[in-house]
Amino acid sequence: MSNKFIVSDPNYKQKVINSFNRQDVMHTINASIVDVQPGYVEITFPYSKSLTQQHDFIHAGIVSTVVDSACGYSAFSLMPEEAGILTIEFKVNLLSPAKGEWFQAIGKVKKPGRTITVSEGELYAHQGDTRKLVATMVGTLMTINDPSGQIKG
Amino acid sequence: MSNKFIVSDPNYKQKVINSFNRQDVMHTINASIVDVQPGYVEITFPYSKSLTQQHDFIHAGIVSTVVDSACGYSAFSLMPEEAGILTIEFKVNLLSPAKGEWFQAIGKVKKPGRTITVSEGELYAHQGDTRKLVATMVGTLMTINDPSGQIKG
Amino acid sequence: MSNKFIVSDPNYKQKVINSFNRQDVMHTINASIVDVQPGYVEITFPYSKSLTQQHDFIHAGIVSTVVDSACGYSAFSLMPEEAGILTIEFKVNLLSPAKGEWFQAIGKVKKPGRTITVSEGELYAHQGDTRKLVATMVGTLMTINDPSGQIKG
Amino acid sequence: MSNKFIVSDPNYKQKVINSFNRQDVMHTINASIVDVQPGYVEITFPYSKSLTQQHDFIHAGIVSTVVDSACGYSAFSLMPEEAGILTIEFKVNLLSPAKGEWFQAIGKVKKPGRTITVSEGELYAHQGDTRKLVATMVGTLMTINDPSGQIKG
Repeated sequence: MSNKFIVSDPNYKQKVINSFNRQDVMHTINASIVDVQPGYVEITFPYSKSLTQQHDFIHAGIVSTVVDSACGYSAFSLMPEEAGILTIEFKVNLLSPAKGEWFQAIGKVKKPGRTITVSEGELYAHQGDTRKLVATMVGTLMTINDPSGQIKG
Repeated sequence: MSNKFIVSDPNYKQKVINSFNRQDVMHTINASIVDVQPGYVEITFPYSKSLTQQHDFIHAGIVSTVVDSACGYSAFSLMPEEAGILTIEFKVNLLSPAKGEWFQAIGKVKKPGRTITVSEGELYAHQGDTRKLVATMVGTLMTINDPSGQIKG
Repeated sequence: MSNKFIVSDPNYKQKVINSFNRQDVMHTINASIVDVQPGYVEITFPYSKSLTQQHDFIHAGIVSTVVDSACGYSAFSLMPEEAGILTIEFKVNLLSPAKGEWFQAIGKVKKPGRTITVSEGELYAHQGDTRKLVATMVGTLMTINDPSGQIKG
Repeated sequence: MSNKFIVSDPNYKQKVINSFNRQDVMHTINASIVDVQPGYVEITFPYSKSLTQQHDFIHAGIVSTVVDSACGYSAFSLMPEEAGILTIEFKVNLLSPAKGEWFQAIGKVKKPGRTITVSEGELYAHQGDTRKLVATMVGTLMTINDPSGQIKG
């Protein structure tokens, strides 16, 4: 994809990966961050029975967990070094059952801003060679300037 | 709360509990369904480091997972015996960090319908004797009539 | 309703009414602001064929227009004197057709904040003595500090 | 754009235009439907002081009105001849002030379905040769089968 966004932190990739690695829930889900570009993040995770709802599909909330992280980190990649990030709200539309061998979450910045960034996300289910769109997200993220560094990242 | 909704399945409590127990992710989260009334469901879960984001708060997606189940089961409690339920979409607003000893998700039907039901949810964080509102949800649920019984519940 | 919110601008009522009166679209809709309390605003408007969709009900977007103003002004009532207000996003659920003689929009602050305020809104249709819930809204509002005063109000 | 959706009503263009013309609010807004393709609809309208909020920008609810019609008709274009359409819910993100000479709303089907269709919308402000993204929408639409024909269209 084209690098259409301006990066203010040259160390943005490592910053995103470090923060992702501190999200213990990503380990619980067995998720991996596989691509970080300016305003773009991709996270994958395998199917696990431990994450399912009553029909053995991945629970919509787990879908949201991974797509929210992808959206949030897509926004975080464009933020200044000292900034923290907060999800204000998101909306998820569930288009197909989350069934497959593994899942791919994509987060993309739609509109960056000094305080408010809007990102869009998608989750795809992969089965063999086929890929199916499972869910879409719109998320609103806020840049937090915290000189204490407590919420940095 | 007042029993303002009409129940079409007299066995609604057991039906909801059975479906909840089939959601493996609820076991992963260590969640318990603690109240089921017509159009009302309450689910609790303890803090666990394994469910956290980068600041050691419960991840917004895990918050969504539990509130979505509470909203969905509040709708499901009013559906006919043979019906299945599908979350079409939800929106979450994150009002405070999800930090606390344990968490309480409440789902309530706002408007029941033959095909579409709208429910509202809240997540509260409990710490000692204090309770703080962490998140609100609005969710749209669909009644599925599946004579094959495959998606029942 | 109980006055549970702290008002920082003692002139909040007049401030809200003045801003409402500058919304030309409210005149086009023939809307009146009928109650302003801390964190609470009520706006009414009569049915007009000029605001309808293809089945002669009020268009969902016009419903949203009035409920968004009610939500926005409920948040604005709590903001400091010099602040401006911006709607970041909202979500509307349409529960019943917007048919009736007149309509009542209610906006209430759910969670006030220094930068971000979340409000909830409802639209009721009135016909004779009956009142029916037509739509619900969740909106996210931002406080804008603009020393130039250009976006004040 | 590529014609990737299957049309079930060969008369879909005229059907959409007829329904649009019955939306009196579109006349009030002075809106024109300028393109109808399978799963795609474009509506434009000029700036008018009568549609503004307190800073003389187009009110977010009027933005929503036009984008909701664009989203709804993009879904309607794919529905069978006898179907009616209902907006269940939508979410709008407001990215920039709605200021300009004229505005262009685009609605596109993201995922068609027998009962539920999800569409995405955008509103652009035009000023001279420049075009700026003002708002995005995600909307959930329902196909209504009404043999009485009362809500057809």
